[in-house]
Amino acid sequence: MSAELVLAPEFLLPENLPDSLGYAPGEVPEERMLAEVGFFVPDYIDSPNPEWMRLMPRLQVVQLPTVGFDAALPHLPEGVTLCNAAGVHEQSTAELTVGTIIARWRGIDRAARNMADGRWDHRRGRSLQGAVVVIVGAGGVGSRIGDALRPLGCRVEMVGRSARKGVWGAERLPELIASADVVVLAVPLTKETEGMVDAAFLERMPDGSLLVNVARGTVVITDDLLDALPRIEAVLDVVEPEPLPSDHPLWSAPGVLITPHIGGDTDAFPRLARELIDRQVRTWRAGAALSNVVVGP
Amino acid sequence: MSAELVLAPEFLLPENLPDSLGYAPGEVPEERMLAEVGFFVPDYIDSPNPEWMRLMPRLQVVQLPTVGFDAALPHLPEGVTLCNAAGVHEQSTAELTVGTIIARWRGIDRAARNMADGRWDHRRGRSLQGAVVVIVGAGGVGSRIGDALRPLGCRVEMVGRSARKGVWGAERLPELIASADVVVLAVPLTKETEGMVDAAFLERMPDGSLLVNVARGTVVITDDLLDALPRIEAVLDVVEPEPLPSDHPLWSAPGVLITPHIGGDTDAFPRLARELIDRQVRTWRAGAALSNVVVGP
Repeated sequence: MSAELVLAPEFLLPENLPDSLGYAPGEVPEERMLAEVGFFVPDYIDSPNPEWMRLMPRLQVVQLPTVGFDAALPHLPEGVTLCNAAGVHEQSTAELTVGTIIARWRGIDRAARNMADGRWDHRRGRSLQGAVVVIVGAGGVGSRIGDALRPLGCRVEMVGRSARKGVWGAERLPELIASADVVVLAVPLTKETEGMVDAAFLERMPDGSLLVNVARGTVVITDDLLDALPRIEAVLDVVEPEPLPSDHPLWSAPGVLITPHIGGDTDAFPRLARELIDRQVRTWRAGAALSNVVVGP
Repeated sequence: MSAELVLAPEFLLPENLPDSLGYAPGEVPEERMLAEVGFFVPDYIDSPNPEWMRLMPRLQVVQLPTVGFDAALPHLPEGVTLCNAAGVHEQSTAELTVGTIIARWRGIDRAARNMADGRWDHRRGRSLQGAVVVIVGAGGVGSRIGDALRPLGCRVEMVGRSARKGVWGAERLPELIASADVVVLAVPLTKETEGMVDAAFLERMPDGSLLVNVARGTVVITDDLLDALPRIEAVLDVVEPEPLPSDHPLWSAPGVLITPHIGGDTDAFPRLARELIDRQVRTWRAGAALSNVVVGP
């Protein structure tokens, strides 16, 4: 067997890719097989397996099926290139962001619950028209969220680490969130963003404003958020911990809508991920420059 | 007092507008006050007062808070400009349409229900990227729905009564719905549209496609829809009858999301109406060309 084996979850393995092997969820390949792997695609959220990297002496490239790469970093062997799945999930996450904001402001969540009792409870909703939406994180996800919200009449303010055209620098964040109707968290999890949304951050948000987290659960200090509810409201696709235990107070906190980390997970994901993996493997085998490199060799 | 008084319902009166006066619902200003009015905003649906126009000898502009203007026409004095509120209501319905489609396809409705039991039930959703959305009704509401869906990657097909640029004629409807992922009903209720969505219409829709009704309940024959579920799914903001009785089978039909006729009902109406009135008054005072003119001077 050649040294350039590609190992990927079965559902993400491109069709007709030479020297490649798919694995089923939970299945662990034999060590002698892992030893041949040069290009590794770890499994998706439910069955994390970054520790396999240590069993791959010939590993050259790790292509993640996610945009976030924080969980892979501690397992990445020296000299191995780490690529993320930028471009695969952003639009799905933007869709969910738009859908959950509208759901919360128009009471679609309440309406869904009322169906069980056949309860018709008409209430005036809140519109996105003219809403000031501060998007924290001006990468692929944040940009797509902005692109989806502007046509709905929102005034979108993008905030990145440093200022550039169309993006405010992080130093403007305290001022911007103080007049926001919605604050969307779309940052990567880093030392700077972990715990960034604390009591002081939440206190700056106006009464009745909405915090949306589609980044990572630990960007928000959950206890501080619980204290701030229901003065502000929250839509959370990510929480800490995940899955959220059934007796966690967030489930029943007023003004909260929780979705089970489904931001990037749509039928578009396997299709776009297979296309990305196919491109990357061919690029790697041709010795050309990979896309989406987050840690160089 | 100047001749250029603005008279508007209190809840629609822009802040800090010079030479303006608000009136409470049911309150009739003194005739000598009406005689000074140059710009008049009649009351909203509940307390019609178009007959005041006849008491305004200096009247130049009537700015309606509604899109419909048929009720004002018989009262409009010769030479007075009539403007409607196009742009004030449509977007709220478009928002709800986008929000409920995403809610259904991403399982936000299921997630909202699961919160009561603290159940974390991660499932893959369906993305709007590449979805074929047929919008039946190419008026203000239908157009705005299209404008909101295109940035999400949908292929939007508009269908009107007759073909025009960017709009298919009604004769193409059977063919278009046969390859639709989503069919949105955004038609006015007329003899032609009442009962339009019957068994034959529903049978043409593909397995797993979604019917969205933000028009009027009687556009759909409910019994036929119940027969078509869950082969197709449905999002219904309008039903027949309203309110839907608590024991109606639609409430528990599989693949259905019902919202209680909240399409146009948001906080955006008073706010956008105030903004429109403010712009129009300033334009009028500057002697420039008004927007939304439905009857010229």
